[in-house]
Amino acid sequence: MKYDLVIKNGTIVTAMTSYKADIAIKEGKISAIGQGLEGKEEIDATDRLVTPGAIDTHVHLEMPIGKFVSSDDFYHGTKAAAFGGTTSIIDFVESKKDQTFVEALKERKSKAADKALIDYRFHMTIGPDDMKKLDQVQSAYDAGCRSFKIYMAYGLKLTDGEILKAFEAIGEAGALPVVHAENWDVITTLIDRNISEGNSGPEWHTKSRPALMEAEAVGRVIDLAAYAGVPVHIFHISCPEAAERVRQARLQGHYVSGETCPQYLCLTDEVFEAEGVEGALPICSPPIRGIIDQLELWEHMSSDTFHTISSDHCPFTKEEKATGLGAFNTVPGGVPSIEMRFPAIYTRGVREGFITENQWVDLCCTMPARLFGLENKGEIQVGKDADIVIFNPEKEMTLSEETLHETAGWTPYRNMKMKGWPETTISRGEVIIRDGECTAAKGRGKYLA
Amino acid sequence: MKYDLVIKNGTIVTAMTSYKADIAIKEGKISAIGQGLEGKEEIDATDRLVTPGAIDTHVHLEMPIGKFVSSDDFYHGTKAAAFGGTTSIIDFVESKKDQTFVEALKERKSKAADKALIDYRFHMTIGPDDMKKLDQVQSAYDAGCRSFKIYMAYGLKLTDGEILKAFEAIGEAGALPVVHAENWDVITTLIDRNISEGNSGPEWHTKSRPALMEAEAVGRVIDLAAYAGVPVHIFHISCPEAAERVRQARLQGHYVSGETCPQYLCLTDEVFEAEGVEGALPICSPPIRGIIDQLELWEHMSSDTFHTISSDHCPFTKEEKATGLGAFNTVPGGVPSIEMRFPAIYTRGVREGFITENQWVDLCCTMPARLFGLENKGEIQVGKDADIVIFNPEKEMTLSEETLHETAGWTPYRNMKMKGWPETTISRGEVIIRDGECTAAKGRGKYLA
Amino acid sequence: MKYDLVIKNGTIVTAMTSYKADIAIKEGKISAIGQGLEGKEEIDATDRLVTPGAIDTHVHLEMPIGKFVSSDDFYHGTKAAAFGGTTSIIDFVESKKDQTFVEALKERKSKAADKALIDYRFHMTIGPDDMKKLDQVQSAYDAGCRSFKIYMAYGLKLTDGEILKAFEAIGEAGALPVVHAENWDVITTLIDRNISEGNSGPEWHTKSRPALMEAEAVGRVIDLAAYAGVPVHIFHISCPEAAERVRQARLQGHYVSGETCPQYLCLTDEVFEAEGVEGALPICSPPIRGIIDQLELWEHMSSDTFHTISSDHCPFTKEEKATGLGAFNTVPGGVPSIEMRFPAIYTRGVREGFITENQWVDLCCTMPARLFGLENKGEIQVGKDADIVIFNPEKEMTLSEETLHETAGWTPYRNMKMKGWPETTISRGEVIIRDGECTAAKGRGKYLA
Amino acid sequence: MKYDLVIKNGTIVTAMTSYKADIAIKEGKISAIGQGLEGKEEIDATDRLVTPGAIDTHVHLEMPIGKFVSSDDFYHGTKAAAFGGTTSIIDFVESKKDQTFVEALKERKSKAADKALIDYRFHMTIGPDDMKKLDQVQSAYDAGCRSFKIYMAYGLKLTDGEILKAFEAIGEAGALPVVHAENWDVITTLIDRNISEGNSGPEWHTKSRPALMEAEAVGRVIDLAAYAGVPVHIFHISCPEAAERVRQARLQGHYVSGETCPQYLCLTDEVFEAEGVEGALPICSPPIRGIIDQLELWEHMSSDTFHTISSDHCPFTKEEKATGLGAFNTVPGGVPSIEMRFPAIYTRGVREGFITENQWVDLCCTMPARLFGLENKGEIQVGKDADIVIFNPEKEMTLSEETLHETAGWTPYRNMKMKGWPETTISRGEVIIRDGECTAAKGRGKYLA
Repeated sequence: MKYDLVIKNGTIVTAMTSYKADIAIKEGKISAIGQGLEGKEEIDATDRLVTPGAIDTHVHLEMPIGKFVSSDDFYHGTKAAAFGGTTSIIDFVESKKDQTFVEALKERKSKAADKALIDYRFHMTIGPDDMKKLDQVQSAYDAGCRSFKIYMAYGLKLTDGEILKAFEAIGEAGALPVVHAENWDVITTLIDRNISEGNSGPEWHTKSRPALMEAEAVGRVIDLAAYAGVPVHIFHISCPEAAERVRQARLQGHYVSGETCPQYLCLTDEVFEAEGVEGALPICSPPIRGIIDQLELWEHMSSDTFHTISSDHCPFTKEEKATGLGAFNTVPGGVPSIEMRFPAIYTRGVREGFITENQWVDLCCTMPARLFGLENKGEIQVGKDADIVIFNPEKEMTLSEETLHETAGWTPYRNMKMKGWPETTISRGEVIIRDGECTAAKGRGKYLA
Repeated sequence: MKYDLVIKNGTIVTAMTSYKADIAIKEGKISAIGQGLEGKEEIDATDRLVTPGAIDTHVHLEMPIGKFVSSDDFYHGTKAAAFGGTTSIIDFVESKKDQTFVEALKERKSKAADKALIDYRFHMTIGPDDMKKLDQVQSAYDAGCRSFKIYMAYGLKLTDGEILKAFEAIGEAGALPVVHAENWDVITTLIDRNISEGNSGPEWHTKSRPALMEAEAVGRVIDLAAYAGVPVHIFHISCPEAAERVRQARLQGHYVSGETCPQYLCLTDEVFEAEGVEGALPICSPPIRGIIDQLELWEHMSSDTFHTISSDHCPFTKEEKATGLGAFNTVPGGVPSIEMRFPAIYTRGVREGFITENQWVDLCCTMPARLFGLENKGEIQVGKDADIVIFNPEKEMTLSEETLHETAGWTPYRNMKMKGWPETTISRGEVIIRDGECTAAKGRGKYLA
Repeated sequence: MKYDLVIKNGTIVTAMTSYKADIAIKEGKISAIGQGLEGKEEIDATDRLVTPGAIDTHVHLEMPIGKFVSSDDFYHGTKAAAFGGTTSIIDFVESKKDQTFVEALKERKSKAADKALIDYRFHMTIGPDDMKKLDQVQSAYDAGCRSFKIYMAYGLKLTDGEILKAFEAIGEAGALPVVHAENWDVITTLIDRNISEGNSGPEWHTKSRPALMEAEAVGRVIDLAAYAGVPVHIFHISCPEAAERVRQARLQGHYVSGETCPQYLCLTDEVFEAEGVEGALPICSPPIRGIIDQLELWEHMSSDTFHTISSDHCPFTKEEKATGLGAFNTVPGGVPSIEMRFPAIYTRGVREGFITENQWVDLCCTMPARLFGLENKGEIQVGKDADIVIFNPEKEMTLSEETLHETAGWTPYRNMKMKGWPETTISRGEVIIRDGECTAAKGRGKYLA
Repeated sequence: MKYDLVIKNGTIVTAMTSYKADIAIKEGKISAIGQGLEGKEEIDATDRLVTPGAIDTHVHLEMPIGKFVSSDDFYHGTKAAAFGGTTSIIDFVESKKDQTFVEALKERKSKAADKALIDYRFHMTIGPDDMKKLDQVQSAYDAGCRSFKIYMAYGLKLTDGEILKAFEAIGEAGALPVVHAENWDVITTLIDRNISEGNSGPEWHTKSRPALMEAEAVGRVIDLAAYAGVPVHIFHISCPEAAERVRQARLQGHYVSGETCPQYLCLTDEVFEAEGVEGALPICSPPIRGIIDQLELWEHMSSDTFHTISSDHCPFTKEEKATGLGAFNTVPGGVPSIEMRFPAIYTRGVREGFITENQWVDLCCTMPARLFGLENKGEIQVGKDADIVIFNPEKEMTLSEETLHETAGWTPYRNMKMKGWPETTISRGEVIIRDGECTAAKGRGKYLA
C-alpha cells in the first residue's frame, strides 16, 4: 500500500520519548508509524526532529480592544503561527450585551472562516454583562466552547461572587475555566498613584502590578475553584510567587494547572528602559519581570506547575502603542509571540538544559491538546490528525520583524538568536509551510468543534 | 512598711510559670511580690490562683448597628466583664462622615467616661468614608488609638486597594491593623441565593459563610499586609482553614497574629437547630461551625497561631434578634461572651488539657496587653497596675442569664458547667468584685491613653 | 508488504494514552503501528487491551537462602511470569567470597541460560565481603549489571560507611543502587526481645519490623545517596511512613524512586492470623501491614512516589516454611507474586479507581524499563522489541495454586477474584502464551546485556 | 523588715520581659521583688541588667579522655564559669565496667565536692558496657541524674537497637535522654580515607564530618525517640541541616529540643587555617563550620529549634593538642567556652539583633533550668535560689587567655571584643564574684539532687 505522504528517517519526538521511524499519512490522518513505509509523496527528515504540530491555546487575533484591533488578523496571524510550527490555536470570543453566546461564537467564527490557515477554536469570555447568560454555558459548550475565560482585571472583571457563579455553571457543563488572575483593585490603586505622582513611563507598568498581587489573585481563584468544585487553568503566570501557589495547590490535590508565555521566559524588565516608544512596545499584562523571576519560572518546569506554554499573542502597531506614551496605563497591551513560541522554547529551554526535548513537546503540543480536549491533535499517534512539524535543530535564525511573518512591524525579541527552527509544517496531511514558503490556501483552517 | 493591700498565700500564675508568693499593692500599682508581705488590708488567697486581670481586646458596648444598639452599655458591660475577671477592654469607635477621628474618639470616650467600671481603650475603625481621613491616622494614634479596624465585610468593607492605602497609613503611624476577614462578595452571593431559594433559617447562616471563604480573606489580607510591610492581627478566626493561613504565614516570618473567641471554642452549629428565636440568638459572624472545627482550633493552641482569645461581645435582646426570624441575614449578629470568657477558657481549655494554666493567662491577659501596647497591664510584675484576679479553680458555676450579669436576657452558653471562677477582681489596687458583689463606683474606669 | 505478525483491532494502552491501531511485527521487533496492516499471521485483539510486555524488576528465582532454595527455578518462574504477562525480569546475583563479580554473573547466567522462557538481567549484590571488589563495579556494569543491590538488613547488611563507599563506586560507573532499607539493628533487637518473651507466632513478624524503622532506613539511605551524589531506588516500600520520605526527597529535587509490591497493595496483616503453617506462609520482609497502610500506599500513586511495582517474588514450599513454625524469625521469607502482579494491579488498581490504565502500564512496564535502562523494552513503539500482551479486561479468574503456574504449592492470594487477565503473551515477536497454553521452548529467554 | 541583701535599682531581665525593681534576698532565696526594698547589705544596680544566674548544661571538667584529662578541674572550671555569670553546671559521669551507676555518681560527686564554687549536677552516660545496667536507671535518677547521655559516636557509641533499649529505660524513669548525634560509621570512613590520602591537617576535621551526616544522625535519633515514645534533647547542633530536622520534628509535635554552643555561633572554619598547633587548637566535634552555617543557626533563634545554648566546655592544653599535629583525628577534641558563653551570646546575639535580651536569658538561664528540672534555678522569682548576675551592658572586654580565668592557656576567641560583661555574680545569696574578684570559698558549690 502506498500512503499519501510519508515522512521518512526522522527522529519522532513525543512527550515521553524520542525514536526513529517513518510516519505515513492517509486522508489527513496519521495512518501508520513504522519502518520502511512508502508514500506517493515522501519527505526526507534525516537529522530532523519530527514533532506534533504545536498548539497555541492563548492568542488574540484581530481582537478589538478599545479603539484598536490587534494587528494580526486570522490570515496573517495563523500564517505566522504556521511558520513557527503551530497548527492549532485557541482564540477568544466575547459576546455583545444583547447577543447570545452561540450567536457571538457564530459571528466570531465567521471572521476566521475564510482567513485561517490552521485549525482553531475559541474560549468564550464571561464578563459582568454575561452573568444573566450563565444558562447558555451548556449551549456554548455544545457549540464547541470547551473553556470559558474569566477576567479578574479590566472592565471584564468579575467580582468573586460572580466568579463563583460562573465557575458553577462552567463546572456543570463539564467545561474548563481559564483565568486572568491579578488583583485589579490594588493594581488600579497603584496605577492611579503612580500616574498622579508623575511616574508615567513604561518601567512603572511592572511596578504597578506587584508579583505578590498576582500571586494573591491566583491563590484567591484557586480557593474559589476549590469551593465550587471545579478545575481551573491559570493563564500567563509571570512570577514565581504565583507559580508557587499553583504548585502548592497541586500538591494538595487540587485540579489546577498553569500557563506561562515566551515573554516571561525570554525577556526581562530591562526592555522597558529603551528610549521613546521602544520602551513602551513590550507592555503586556501581567508584566515582564526581573531576571530572577524568569529563571525561577524555568526552574518550575521540573515541578509540574505548568501544563502549557502559550503565546498570549496580542500585538499592536508602533503607532497604536505610541498613543500611550504619556501614561503607561493607556498603552494598548500585548506582544507578538505566536511565531517564535515553539522554536524559542526549544532554543531557550532545551538547548540551555532547563527542559528535555520531550518536555518541550509536552508543554507546547501534547498537554495543551489534552487539557482543552483537542482529541485529534497534539500527538504523533496513529489515528490522530496529521499535524506534524519537521524541525531542524541546527537551523540558525535571528528574530526580527524582517525574519518573522507577524504584521505589527516590531518584535520584542529583535536580535534574539535561535538555534532550531521548523522547516516544514503539515496540517491534516497538507504541507502548509515548506522551505520558508507558505504553500497553503487562505481559509483552509477548520473550526475545531 | 505596710502596703495598702496584700494578697497573701496565693499561687501566682503568669504566662510562664506558677509559684507561691504574696503580692503587695501600693497606690494602685504592684509594689512588691514576696514572702511574708504585710498590708493595711490583706486578702487570703490560699488555694486560689492569682492571675493578672484579664484583657478583652474585642468588645462592642452600646454599639449602634442599624436600628439597634448592642444591649450592654459601658456600665453593664464592664460590670459583667469585671465579674468574669476582666479589667481592661478595647472597644471600637467609628467616625461619622464629617467628623475627624479625634472628634469621634472624644465623643465615644464620653459615652464610657461616667459609666465604665474598668479601664478601656478603642480601636479606630477605618471605613470607606474615611479614606480621605488617612492623614488623621497619626493624630488618632497620638490620642490613644494604637490599632485600627478594617472590615472586609458589611457596609464598612474596604476594597483591596483601600485596604492597602489604610495599611500604609497605619504602618506609617506605627499602629496595628486589626481585620474582620471574610470574602464578602461570595458571602452576599450565597446569602442572596439561599434567601431567594427560601432557605432563611438560622442554620443557613453558617452555610452562607464557608470556612474556605474566611480562609481566603485571611490569606488575602496577609498578602496585602506583606506587600504593605505592616503587621496584621486577624480577628475572630472561626475555622482551622483560616487558622492554618495564619500559622503558615508566621512560619514564613510574617508578623501576623490571630484571635479566636469563646463562641468558636465552646459552641457548635448545633445551636442553630433550636426552635424559634432560640435558634436565631447565636447568630454571629464569622459563624459558629462544626465540632471538628472547634477541636482543631483547640489543637492550634499548641502552635502559636493565636495571640489572643477575646469575646467579640456584641449581644442583642431576644426581641431584637426576633426581628430577623424570617431571614437569617437580617438577624442582628453577635453573642454575649464578655463575662464567661476568662473562666470558660480555664474550664474548657485548662481542665480538658488543651492548654496549660500559663497559656491561659498568656492568651487572655499577657499577650493581649503586649500586642496592643497596654504597657501597665497583663502581667503580675512589680510596677504594673494592680489589676489582679483571685480565681477559685474549684468553684463551680452553671452559666445562665441568671448567674451572669449581662443584660441581653439570654446566653448561648446556658447550662454550660464551669469549674473555676473569679472570686475577687482588683483594678488598679481597688477591689471591684468581691464575693459575687460589685463594690466599685460607676465611671471609675479610666481611658488608657 | 506482509509483516510476520500483526495484532489487529486492539486498543493499545501506553503510559500516556490509549488508542486503537494494529501492531505489525517483523523479525521480533515492532515494525509498524497503523491502520489496516497485514501480516502472514494475524491475531485479532478486538475488545482487548494491547500493552507492552510487563517487566518485573525484582524477582528471586532458584535463589539459595540458608538451607533452602526459592521454589521456582528459572524455567518455572519465567513460565509463570509469562502467563501473567511479564516478558522481562531482573533477578539477582551474589558473588562468592573469592569470586569476581563477572565470574559470579557468568555462573548465575548459566543457571538461567537453558531454562528461561523470557528475557532477564541481574542486579549485582554488594555485600560486606565485596567491599574489596568495588573496583570491579565498572566491569560488572560493562557485563550488563546496570544496578547494584545494597542490603541494610540481614547478613548481607552494609554499614553506613560501606554504603557510602559502594554508592561512590556505583555512581562512578553510572549505575543505579537499589536498596533493601530497614533498620536492622532495631529489628534484631525487637526480634530477640519478642522471641525471648515467647512471642514467636507469625503476627510478631510485623510487630518486630515497625513502619517507622523502615522509614528511618529509607531516610538514612536517601541522606547517604544525597551525600554521595547518586540516585537511589528504594525497594519494596511497605508503609506510608517510608513512602513519604521518598515523596519529600523528590520534592526537594533528589533523584530518588520507590518500588512497592502486590503483597503490600493487595494483602493485610490479617493473613498472619491463620492457623498453623497457613499463618506463617505470607511472612516476607518488609512485612505486610494494616489496611490503612495499604490504602495510603495506593493514595501515593497520585504522587510520583513510586516508579515501579514489582513482585519481589521469592516463594518457599509449605514444608520449608513450616520449619520456622516455632519462631517467626526462622521462617524463610518471601511470597509468590510473579504471575499475578500485572493483572492484579489492573484488578485492584485500575478497576477500583486508584490508577488509570495508563498508569498501570507506566508502573508495570514503561518506568521499570526506563529506570533500569532496558532500552528495547517497556513501550509499544516502532523499533522496540515486540514484547506485547493481549489483555482481556473482562476475563475473570480466581487465584489459587491450581490456576497459577508457580510451584510453591500455595499462594497468599488464594480466592482473590480477578477481572482482567492476559490471554496472549508475545516475546520478541514469538507467541509464548496463547489461550492458557505455553507455546515456547525452555531456554528461549535471552540475557539482556 | 530588713532583708539580708537587696539589689537595688537594676533592670530585671526575665525570659519574657524587662522591668525595674529591687530584689531582696533572705537565707539564700529570693524573698521579694519590689520597690524600695531595704537590706542589711545593698548593691546598687543602676544602669545594670539583673539576670538569673546562667546555667551551663553541658560541661566537661577534669574529664579523662584517653591519656589526657580536660584542663579545668572543678575548682578552676567553676570559678571561670562564675566570672562569666554562670551559677549552675551540669557535667557528666561515666561508670566503670564493674561499677554501678550510683557508685560512679558518688565517686564523680566526690571530685567536685571540695572544689566546686557553684552548684552542679551530672548527666549519667550510658555506654555499650552499661547495657546490662539499664535496670539501674531508676536508682541513678533517684540519686539525682535526671538526664542520660547517649553517644552515637566514639567508643561510647551505642547501636540503634541499644539506643532504643536505653531510651525505653530512660523514659520509664521519667528522665531525659541527651544525645551526641553524628553518623560515626560514615565519619570514621571519611577520616580513614582522608588520613590515608595524607590529608591530615586540621581543616580535614570539618571535611570528615559532613553536615548532612550530622543531620542524618539527628533525624535517626528523633525517629528512635518517637518510636520509643520519649522526648529527646540534641546536643551541640553545629549546622542548619541538623537544626532543620529538630524544627520539623517540633512542628510535627515531637518533644525534641536542641542545643547549640558559642563555638558554632561565634567562630567559623577559618580557625583551622592558622599555622602549626594554633590551627589544631579549635578542633571539637561536631566541627566548627562555615559562615553561612553560623548565620543560619542564628536565624533558627526565631524558630523554637533551640532550647539551650551551652558551652560543651572541654579544653586541653596546647601541649596536649599538639600531640595530634600529625593527624587531625588524634587531636584531643574540645574548646574552652565556659566563661565567655553568657556574655558572648549577649554581645553577638543581642547587640547584633539576632535575639532580644529576653531570649538571651531564656536560652542561657530559664529554659535550661526547666528542661533539666533545676526547679530552684533559672528565674528571678520569689522563692527561687538567689542565683543572680548583675550585668553591665556597657562594659567592654577583649577575650584572651589573660582576661579569662580558664587554665588551658589559650582560647579560640582571642581578640573577640565583647560589649557587656557580668560584674557581680551571686549564688544562693552569696556574692561570689565582685568587681573582677572571686570572693567565694572553694567547695561551696552544692550538688543539685
